[in-house]
Amino acid sequence: MNTGSGAPVSIVEVAPRDGLQNEHHIVPTDVKIAWINALSRTGLRRIEVTSFVRSDRVPQLADAEIVLAEIDRIPNVAYGVLVPNLQGLERALVHRPDAIALFIAVSETFNQRNIGASIEESFARFTPVIADARQAGLPIRGYLSTVIGCPYEGVIDPGKVAEMAERFMMLGVDEVSLGDTIGVGTPAQVKRLLDQVSQRVPVTRIAVHFHDTYGQALANVQTALDQGVCIIDSSVHGLGGCPFAPGASGNVATEEVVYLLEGQGCRTGVDLPALLRAGGLVGRILGRPPVSRLARVPLESIWLNPGKIWNHRR
Amino acid sequence: MNTGSGAPVSIVEVAPRDGLQNEHHIVPTDVKIAWINALSRTGLRRIEVTSFVRSDRVPQLADAEIVLAEIDRIPNVAYGVLVPNLQGLERALVHRPDAIALFIAVSETFNQRNIGASIEESFARFTPVIADARQAGLPIRGYLSTVIGCPYEGVIDPGKVAEMAERFMMLGVDEVSLGDTIGVGTPAQVKRLLDQVSQRVPVTRIAVHFHDTYGQALANVQTALDQGVCIIDSSVHGLGGCPFAPGASGNVATEEVVYLLEGQGCRTGVDLPALLRAGGLVGRILGRPPVSRLARVPLESIWLNPGKIWNHRR
Repeated sequence: MNTGSGAPVSIVEVAPRDGLQNEHHIVPTDVKIAWINALSRTGLRRIEVTSFVRSDRVPQLADAEIVLAEIDRIPNVAYGVLVPNLQGLERALVHRPDAIALFIAVSETFNQRNIGASIEESFARFTPVIADARQAGLPIRGYLSTVIGCPYEGVIDPGKVAEMAERFMMLGVDEVSLGDTIGVGTPAQVKRLLDQVSQRVPVTRIAVHFHDTYGQALANVQTALDQGVCIIDSSVHGLGGCPFAPGASGNVATEEVVYLLEGQGCRTGVDLPALLRAGGLVGRILGRPPVSRLARVPLESIWLNPGKIWNHRR
Repeated sequence: MNTGSGAPVSIVEVAPRDGLQNEHHIVPTDVKIAWINALSRTGLRRIEVTSFVRSDRVPQLADAEIVLAEIDRIPNVAYGVLVPNLQGLERALVHRPDAIALFIAVSETFNQRNIGASIEESFARFTPVIADARQAGLPIRGYLSTVIGCPYEGVIDPGKVAEMAERFMMLGVDEVSLGDTIGVGTPAQVKRLLDQVSQRVPVTRIAVHFHDTYGQALANVQTALDQGVCIIDSSVHGLGGCPFAPGASGNVATEEVVYLLEGQGCRTGVDLPALLRAGGLVGRILGRPPVSRLARVPLESIWLNPGKIWNHRR
């Protein structure tokens, strides 16, 4: 897929991992597998399917091994997993993921409370993981969370984000995903952040991961695209939430990102109605309607600009 | 309020008119008045409170006279009303609105179906209305609807929008509000549209009125701001809907626009918690939770970037 300027743009679908991680209801394994299989057939090329953290910490993803083992592996789709440490990587490797991801918070306090380690300890843990993953030939993503605001520390210094992103790259990850974990960023902060990070990390190695808690996520995505970012994390139907603002919304919605990209001539390769149907597969289980605006449009009246009408009838 | 560049930005709150017009439930008059009175005390400076169309057409606003007569008139707040014709203006003038607005669709078919007149007939009707409104010393806004897409005609030519905007100005309106009525526009279309319209109408006379049907509205708002537009129409809690996509969302949410603007140093003067509380006054009547993401954040954990924490506790 290409932007108007010609640079290819990738979408990384994170609903099965980041979305479900922040949902209260546990999706049964068979439903989850059927759902991921449906997502695999929408044109999406990168899907993060689970996380190998301790199941007592994230019970929603306790079925990580089974999911990775039993989902369909569609050609040209990369199935990634999150791992917290070497033990998680070893569990994952048994079932041959296509990519792995590590995570750390820019906020020291958030890292301590969320991961139970200091930033230094976290980086130290990554070294053997990265070594083993590289030996296995796996692409490695480094997630940075709380890149704009932290519920404990408040506003985060973009310079610190840039330093940590560079450090992650020097350790050996292939891309860094910058996460506005509590969704407080606006275009102004995103621009300032990317100005700083792109001085230390090539913009082609930067992904953005925006939460939509304050409704800013899609505007932030556009800002990132304008800055040359071409990897966008999103969650079908906007699944997920925010543990720090109960009831709040989750990640930016994949369908809204697809719509935005198609509108600027970026051919995503994603079939929007198929994506929406896939998103709907878990809606009943999660016990609430989707937060995404686009998902509320009746399928029979969906249309796609400019000039392409998917299935528009009057 | 000023953008980072210093240009003042106005928000026009349209929930009591455009929002309610597209909601199924009828809000009782006394609740509506209390709600508008609350909105008047949030720092908003322009509120569109009702419409003097025929009550059989828009029963939600059948109480137009009473509302305009009985709401509090807070100093420095301008209370505007929509009028379809001379008769509507005369009804409105009895109760001294601060501003009036006329409306027309760029799509001939939409104008016929929605208003029951051709574009030429509509413009002809405006002449005496504008004359009388000017004589009464009232600022006049001209709404253009279906500026990007039409459910009947499909994609709309931005050149036609520019011509009609210019014609409206030549007839004597003081500003034109460009409405993406079915919410299909993305930043790419908004940019192209504003490039054209701003060649015919000074950008300071252009307002944008984005519906959030496809989740693009706030990204579109940012694009408009980047193009120099400084009048943004919005609806508290994202109230409203889309008659062409039942169940779909409404206007861009005022609170999310405020948040976006504050994030870029634009001092809106709006008290965000007060705005959210005002929005909540009609929630129960409308029988559904707000579509706005920001409105889902528990009030006690709302924060405002950058660095200003309204009421943030951990």
